Amino acid sequence: MANVEKFEIQTTARNQMIDITKYVEMAVKKSGVKNGICVIHIPHTTAGVTINENADLDVCDDIIFHLNTLIPNLKTFKHFERNSDSHLKSSIIGCSQTVIIENGELLLGRWQGIYFCEFDGERHRKFFVKIIEG
Amino acid sequence: MANVEKFEIQTTARNQMIDITKYVEMAVKKSGVKNGICVIHIPHTTAGVTINENADLDVCDDIIFHLNTLIPNLKTFKHFERNSDSHLKSSIIGCSQTVIIENGELLLGRWQGIYFCEFDGERHRKFFVKIIEG
Amino acid sequence: MANVEKFEIQTTARNQMIDITKYVEMAVKKSGVKNGICVIHIPHTTAGVTINENADLDVCDDIIFHLNTLIPNLKTFKHFERNSDSHLKSSIIGCSQTVIIENGELLLGRWQGIYFCEFDGERHRKFFVKIIEG
Repeated sequence: MANVEKFEIQTTARNQMIDITKYVEMAVKKSGVKNGICVIHIPHTTAGVTINENADLDVCDDIIFHLNTLIPNLKTFKHFERNSDSHLKSSIIGCSQTVIIENGELLLGRWQGIYFCEFDGERHRKFFVKIIEG
Repeated sequence: MANVEKFEIQTTARNQMIDITKYVEMAVKKSGVKNGICVIHIPHTTAGVTINENADLDVCDDIIFHLNTLIPNLKTFKHFERNSDSHLKSSIIGCSQTVIIENGELLLGRWQGIYFCEFDGERHRKFFVKIIEG
Repeated sequence: MANVEKFEIQTTARNQMIDITKYVEMAVKKSGVKNGICVIHIPHTTAGVTINENADLDVCDDIIFHLNTLIPNLKTFKHFERNSDSHLKSSIIGCSQTVIIENGELLLGRWQGIYFCEFDGERHRKFFVKIIEG
């Protein structure tokens, strides 16, 4: 129970949402915990994690499209790596999510999936899953 | 303590913030937990939950007004349900909040209330409250 | 373990990001907890907390610069205190963060720091750290 499950993924575009729900479910099953909470953490400053629609993939495309409109890669940004847009997206979407566990399952809505959000790919990335029983 | 409290509410506008603090407080009281944390989860992909000012209701109006300006319902969105604006608002505000419990009370600031955020109403909605002692 | 660590800081600008990682680390050390999670809560409605780059401070400047562009202090806002921009920024960035604790340390990425976000300073502010073992 004290373990943190660590996963690795390869992203394939600069901006991309990847459904990681099944990996989080695997971590819950492996823990054997029936009731508690689950924290998903992204250890990167140009990526994030969100929960959104798991049915029509056009939703992810629309989310990324409009985030890019709101937060373009401005020439006036000072950061020398030229990816401050990616950093701001990370802070707006957030780098962690907490999900309730009930009866050994993630207590998500019918249409909710957990998405790794790449904002500065393509990159080799990690995410962590920690389960607290209670 | 292993229970999840489940609440239902009816929203009455497409975009709306509803103060649910008293329901979360009820769940804390019912649990009898004196110290720990409390996770509020919204199982919908076009709604969210935030913590903000509980005194002047104009703050909620201003928040909704400017969110609508930033994230209009664009005709260029691809999602067939025509509510990608609602989905993006949900990911930006977030579908869960975690609050500290101290001495049997939510440890909120004096002006902080917990708000259910409807972004695609009017709808019949749910929210969940899970308490972890510790 | 049931204690909440409470910190106070003085901000010095209307919009400002202040690295508070070392204070959160202190709370973890003091607790003696080796494995669990840590909730950082800001009890204010015009401030927030985020996790982002801890190396090049230009990233914080760029984040604040573009947040100000996206969310100006509009004359059309109704709230009598004339700081609805600060409230919206607080809800978009969020007023709490949850971080995993592993082997007595915050499980952050190499470039991740925890930042108190002032959106309506300069002000005397507080933040709370609660640790859950598990």
